[in-house]
Amino acid sequence: MTQLATIILAAGRGTRMHSALHKVLHPIAGRPMILHLMDRAAVLSPQRTVLIVGDGAQQVRDVLGKEVEYAVQDRQLGTGHAVSQARDMLRDFSGDVLVLYGDVPFVRADTLTRLRKRLHAPDQPAVAVLGFRPADTRGYGRIIADGAGHIEQMVEHKDADDAQRACTLCNSGVLAARATDLFALLDRIGNDNAQGEYYLTDIVNLATSDGRACAVVETADAAEVAGINDRAELARAEAQWQETSRQEAMAAGVTMRACETVFLSWDTRFGRDVTIEPHVVFGPGVHIADNVTIRAFSHIEGARIESGVEVGPFARLRPGSVLEEGSRLGNFVEMKQAVLGKGAKANHLSYLGDAHIGANANIGAGTITCNYDGYFKHRTTIGERAFIGSNSALVAPLTIGADAIVAAGSTVSRDVADGELRMVRADQLIKPGWADRFHDLMRKKKQARNK
Amino acid sequence: MTQLATIILAAGRGTRMHSALHKVLHPIAGRPMILHLMDRAAVLSPQRTVLIVGDGAQQVRDVLGKEVEYAVQDRQLGTGHAVSQARDMLRDFSGDVLVLYGDVPFVRADTLTRLRKRLHAPDQPAVAVLGFRPADTRGYGRIIADGAGHIEQMVEHKDADDAQRACTLCNSGVLAARATDLFALLDRIGNDNAQGEYYLTDIVNLATSDGRACAVVETADAAEVAGINDRAELARAEAQWQETSRQEAMAAGVTMRACETVFLSWDTRFGRDVTIEPHVVFGPGVHIADNVTIRAFSHIEGARIESGVEVGPFARLRPGSVLEEGSRLGNFVEMKQAVLGKGAKANHLSYLGDAHIGANANIGAGTITCNYDGYFKHRTTIGERAFIGSNSALVAPLTIGADAIVAAGSTVSRDVADGELRMVRADQLIKPGWADRFHDLMRKKKQARNK
Amino acid sequence: MTQLATIILAAGRGTRMHSALHKVLHPIAGRPMILHLMDRAAVLSPQRTVLIVGDGAQQVRDVLGKEVEYAVQDRQLGTGHAVSQARDMLRDFSGDVLVLYGDVPFVRADTLTRLRKRLHAPDQPAVAVLGFRPADTRGYGRIIADGAGHIEQMVEHKDADDAQRACTLCNSGVLAARATDLFALLDRIGNDNAQGEYYLTDIVNLATSDGRACAVVETADAAEVAGINDRAELARAEAQWQETSRQEAMAAGVTMRACETVFLSWDTRFGRDVTIEPHVVFGPGVHIADNVTIRAFSHIEGARIESGVEVGPFARLRPGSVLEEGSRLGNFVEMKQAVLGKGAKANHLSYLGDAHIGANANIGAGTITCNYDGYFKHRTTIGERAFIGSNSALVAPLTIGADAIVAAGSTVSRDVADGELRMVRADQLIKPGWADRFHDLMRKKKQARNK
Repeated sequence: MTQLATIILAAGRGTRMHSALHKVLHPIAGRPMILHLMDRAAVLSPQRTVLIVGDGAQQVRDVLGKEVEYAVQDRQLGTGHAVSQARDMLRDFSGDVLVLYGDVPFVRADTLTRLRKRLHAPDQPAVAVLGFRPADTRGYGRIIADGAGHIEQMVEHKDADDAQRACTLCNSGVLAARATDLFALLDRIGNDNAQGEYYLTDIVNLATSDGRACAVVETADAAEVAGINDRAELARAEAQWQETSRQEAMAAGVTMRACETVFLSWDTRFGRDVTIEPHVVFGPGVHIADNVTIRAFSHIEGARIESGVEVGPFARLRPGSVLEEGSRLGNFVEMKQAVLGKGAKANHLSYLGDAHIGANANIGAGTITCNYDGYFKHRTTIGERAFIGSNSALVAPLTIGADAIVAAGSTVSRDVADGELRMVRADQLIKPGWADRFHDLMRKKKQARNK
Repeated sequence: MTQLATIILAAGRGTRMHSALHKVLHPIAGRPMILHLMDRAAVLSPQRTVLIVGDGAQQVRDVLGKEVEYAVQDRQLGTGHAVSQARDMLRDFSGDVLVLYGDVPFVRADTLTRLRKRLHAPDQPAVAVLGFRPADTRGYGRIIADGAGHIEQMVEHKDADDAQRACTLCNSGVLAARATDLFALLDRIGNDNAQGEYYLTDIVNLATSDGRACAVVETADAAEVAGINDRAELARAEAQWQETSRQEAMAAGVTMRACETVFLSWDTRFGRDVTIEPHVVFGPGVHIADNVTIRAFSHIEGARIESGVEVGPFARLRPGSVLEEGSRLGNFVEMKQAVLGKGAKANHLSYLGDAHIGANANIGAGTITCNYDGYFKHRTTIGERAFIGSNSALVAPLTIGADAIVAAGSTVSRDVADGELRMVRADQLIKPGWADRFHDLMRKKKQARNK
Repeated sequence: MTQLATIILAAGRGTRMHSALHKVLHPIAGRPMILHLMDRAAVLSPQRTVLIVGDGAQQVRDVLGKEVEYAVQDRQLGTGHAVSQARDMLRDFSGDVLVLYGDVPFVRADTLTRLRKRLHAPDQPAVAVLGFRPADTRGYGRIIADGAGHIEQMVEHKDADDAQRACTLCNSGVLAARATDLFALLDRIGNDNAQGEYYLTDIVNLATSDGRACAVVETADAAEVAGINDRAELARAEAQWQETSRQEAMAAGVTMRACETVFLSWDTRFGRDVTIEPHVVFGPGVHIADNVTIRAFSHIEGARIESGVEVGPFARLRPGSVLEEGSRLGNFVEMKQAVLGKGAKANHLSYLGDAHIGANANIGAGTITCNYDGYFKHRTTIGERAFIGSNSALVAPLTIGADAIVAAGSTVSRDVADGELRMVRADQLIKPGWADRFHDLMRKKKQARNK
């Protein structure tokens, strides 16, 4: 098979986002939209990927690094001009080229494959263009094609007459061409139009007038070529992604009582018989095994949750959290870079950071690992079956042995041996009647103030 | 009136649920779907209820116990075969039979009553079938009936010709017949069809060919006969149940600022002038009186909330919680098997388990009842008007008297008398300049590491 | 320009709300609906505002105070009778009058301006009525008008014949008239109809029969004249308000991953590049600057959040909270009447009430300001760069100096100087083997109980 290069246009300013962040870096499901596009393009294993960048190029480079080659478009002179910027870079490349858009991230891999294959059909079209039929055709350029999918003419919306506007087949902008054809045709396009821009689309009309065939490949799913130009469109893309992903999860055996209130990340993975209560948010890097219940109001990022675990409600798992088999993390508990061992429990109001908690240990309500001294982070290690009494502060670095007990309310600053009891507690100071006298005094004071 | 038996089919494997849990036990609004169905059937006071079970029968028995009789269908040979399994059990029963489906849980009691009554109309039909008109008729068997509702023919979807498919009246599968008719007709059905199955529906065609009348009763609400075969349909059923229940609650005087984010349980009960903020989840067993406000992000199960109470935001009430009149439970507070007395307050970051808190007591921020010693649970009793200072740990079993004061930060392990002050606090160790020296040292250490 | 008076009808009992709260005081986006209406009317700068009140008038007076004049309608004898109650109050007023409804709060200011201007067009109509075309016309009175918008007849729905019902232009009830015309016409209406009520609408038919022109002004947006009569309609109005406001926020540069789960208040204000995760609720009085991230499950009221701040997840900001530039408030943290200085952090499980926290201070997990002694509130002041160890209780009134360190687990009841270390901690009591013996004992006890 011939080689493949993708040229991705990402030089647009994205002014309608009203954002300092580059448009193609705005995230959907926690992943920059350009990476969603590249995930899909990667299925076709392109040998080369050229990103056309302009304003804010450095932001894009910081995210994509050396995964792609960069061509800079200094001035915004139209899509044809943008694609031309890849010419030098692809001088020695003679395979196929797919032209994609950084702000059209959800075009499907199988659609791209169809588009590319069309180029190699017996009629050998010079260009294969991806067309679609939106519910509302306003603003879109039209593809005038015959019944066999051969393009007769590409018309910009504003240049279209009424008959042409009645045509509902619209131009997505996505197209495929051989590199040699693409750059030869781009050489010949002009900017003699209302906007004074070089339109990529013009290569089709040039090829057609040369007597070359040009073909349209149609997608039935207008959503895959939807562009994202403002935050409302970004929200719509997110909503669509979420809906698709929730349905996939449910089909695979996840129960969601109210799927519309559950937000997945691009890489969330589920086992079978997972139950997710309403109002749960997943950040990146979450793997959940079988028979897990995630209760309401949980926020989970960068966590591995093994089988039989119950999480929440009101749990927060931060990156580096591991919940081993059958463990239990309850309400108002935060975990970070920490392992909760098999069958261990931390059910209430705790912070477990930079910690390893042994199997079947019991972490009492209000336990806090004091992992930070203002300068460095330190680790806490708790042995198997240890019992940490409520409202304890564990000052790291600290090791607590197996079967050890920490009495409630203790601030533990020295290691605790296996089977040891550690209690850090002042004497019970008892003042009979003191509270009665205090109440009398304060009531009078309050009355005096209210006068 | 004649006696009534219901036969409920629940032997299907439910493979499309991808679950180890039996299909009819999957919950909707916190209650297994089969129980929703039985709640509705119970309105007709059946003398007998026979459940046809197959794979996973034990799971079903564990939930329903002796509420029903069980007939086992070992092999899945069709709906007619399934109903036949009840024959022996109902040998001496000569009343009416309703055939229901464990995965069609929301058929309405008044619809079932209409269906049964139809059996006793002057034309004395042998079978009365529940029909409906779905938006999408694909896959459903058709009921060919005359204008008077007499059935001419039942046709499976795949056997229907175009004229029959144009008929929009579909077969729900739910039907009523006299026991004697039902089993006599079932004796005569065969399995000479594409699936090799015994179809319950065939009893209608047999009766018709005998010259007996068969009648269709139509429901205008296709949702009540919707089957649940996968988790997406389960989610849809839950959504529908929620929407109906929220509208009923609002009509009765509950304000929900965003009802679509509030999830009720099958048995949630509200008084008048209850306000529920967005993002609230109710589990089973919650009763709420008048003039109660449930603030956002609250999770409430098994709780009685009396009038004038304010709960949340971020409150978690677990089973056995009672909030007496005018009490107040605030953010990041968990309650379990506990009573918060009239006018008492627990506003911040607390855990109240196995406790009784007297009227007008004040529970400071960060208070924790230490109710568990690793082996047994113990109770805490707090007197009226007691003041529990912040960040206190109350080691149960413990009694704190009326008007008593516990100083902030105390771990209280011995009872506190009425009007007493209890303070458990070490001396204030003061080290002037120590922190300045520590900062100097650590800054240098940090610089050294960063080199 | 002539003067303007608004007469707002708010005497209806609102029985369908099933509420002790007056209908027009039920809030939408946190603001009583009558105030939404008055906000819109205020754009036209009326010289006089007369509220017609009946049952529950005192509740309304308590909220609106002296902002409006009140006329009491003792008996509910119809809309015409209601407006008449303003007659004495407006005896000396000769300008224009707009008749509005307290339960129709979202009529737009530009619509009201159009309505009023229509009164002063060359044809000088006696009355200008606001018409609309609802999707479902049932129950609405019809406006029979010619093509030029001159009203021929107003017909109540129940009095309309089929031809009149075919007319889709409906009467919103909102109208404009000169005060002199209005009250003169009202003098002449009767109550000879099915309900025995005086209908405001009748003034149009009277004026028409006098040969005076009456005009209809049409709004294309039926939602702006939707009345709120029960809690379902209230929920719908809230939903509509939220949707509009979210779209406005996104258009201005706010990213919401799931805008349908974010609830704004009527006065929420955002800067640019604000990101709001799913499940966030705003109460009144929130101002958010640029580059702020509000993470999931946050509840924010009465707070000023400066640029570069990150809040949540699971944060609760109560009135009087100020988060200065670059500060960070994390999970399960509550703030109230408190300032978190520039770059300061309070990341976990804390309560900061009546406090001022200096720049770059670090508040450890589980820190609690003990601001209440049961009678009075006291303040806590924490210096710049101070480090408060985890699980500390700060007993206010208290001042902690700059660069000071409070050791973990300390209950601090006396001021801490700059650069000082304060540690309040009992000795580490070590009992080797005690826990092992305890476990043995308890296991036996448990076995004994289970026998």
